[in-house]
Amino acid sequence: MAEEVLVFGAWGSPFSRRVEMALKLKGIEYKYIEEDLTNKSPSLLKYNPVHKKIPVLVHNGKPVAESLVILEYIDETWKDHPILPKDPYERANARFWAKFIDEKCLSAIFKACWGEHYEHEKAEKEHEKAVKEVSELLQFLENELKEKRYFGGETVGLLDIAANIIGYWLGVFEEASGAELLTREKFPKLCNWANEFVCVTAIKENLPARDKLIAYLRNRFGAGNASK
Amino acid sequence: MAEEVLVFGAWGSPFSRRVEMALKLKGIEYKYIEEDLTNKSPSLLKYNPVHKKIPVLVHNGKPVAESLVILEYIDETWKDHPILPKDPYERANARFWAKFIDEKCLSAIFKACWGEHYEHEKAEKEHEKAVKEVSELLQFLENELKEKRYFGGETVGLLDIAANIIGYWLGVFEEASGAELLTREKFPKLCNWANEFVCVTAIKENLPARDKLIAYLRNRFGAGNASK
Repeated sequence: MAEEVLVFGAWGSPFSRRVEMALKLKGIEYKYIEEDLTNKSPSLLKYNPVHKKIPVLVHNGKPVAESLVILEYIDETWKDHPILPKDPYERANARFWAKFIDEKCLSAIFKACWGEHYEHEKAEKEHEKAVKEVSELLQFLENELKEKRYFGGETVGLLDIAANIIGYWLGVFEEASGAELLTREKFPKLCNWANEFVCVTAIKENLPARDKLIAYLRNRFGAGNASK
Repeated sequence: MAEEVLVFGAWGSPFSRRVEMALKLKGIEYKYIEEDLTNKSPSLLKYNPVHKKIPVLVHNGKPVAESLVILEYIDETWKDHPILPKDPYERANARFWAKFIDEKCLSAIFKACWGEHYEHEKAEKEHEKAVKEVSELLQFLENELKEKRYFGGETVGLLDIAANIIGYWLGVFEEASGAELLTREKFPKLCNWANEFVCVTAIKENLPARDKLIAYLRNRFGAGNASK
């Protein structure tokens, strides 16, 4: 029986792009369905009634939601080109840092780029605080890279894919908002990693066009905090 | 070489109890170190410099943090009595719902029990809203139990352990705060499950004493929202 693999996503989302990146790395064919997030389809609501969010992977009719859960499912279902290491301790590390990116980095980055709507004086202080926080968080990832080419070692793995937000979206957020976060002086390893990461075929094929994303972000969130 | 397994935890925390439950289920001996959360030890800060939180499992000198990450590590390191199913789809489901408990249920339950500090009239409305939200979230778990004895099927698994917050702590929170959330009328399956869950030896041995926990919660958070 031919497998049916569907991905419900949104073109600019690092989360649904994660799913596509993993499938591309493993050479799995899939059908991509673009969701209009302002008017979600009955299929999306049926497949993810809990969170009503993209991404959802539907494999032979069975839905899996939450990008990190999907990545693990993909790795356990299609064994070629594993994205998690074999060693339990290294696997725990990859999971720990992927969770860290989603739970700590993302909101901090967003705050540093677009922040909350304060009056002028307060906004400046809050912006500085947020930039400092992002800097501390990125330092942990800089250290975690050690002397490795990718977080996954010699090849791209689950943590690299989860870090797509740092490897590609962060640079776009910086340009759209004017914030300066991932500087080469402070984070040479992360910058080198990001440069290599976006050149990997399965990754490169799944990055939304920079100009389109910048236009979308500016339209949605304004010119950013740094310019306030 | 004898294995060294340390658990840094706090007696009343469902998160460090999760780690102990999994180790007990698998029959792994460990040394438990109680942390004073108001004055964290240098060891805890060394082993979990990112979050500075319990629980931390230290296995032969190597630390793993974040309770769900630790549970996966335990399952991959000590294979007896697996706590995750074999089937990738069922594994994804267990991970999805464990994440759901941590990211959605916990804050909603806490809000329904102790809420924010509003003036009287607003507090009542917010309390009602929070109770309704918890009810909707618990309904998802009620449905997920289906006709199974445990979330893990015939034996306790990762999702049961992650759901310890619903299976034991929630009842204690209700008593301490006066909120009524997990009612038998609405959630017969979850109530039956909770009754069975707390009787499993490895679980029962890892539940903090009810009276001590209630006294601690009332002292820390007050008499609760429902009585406002």
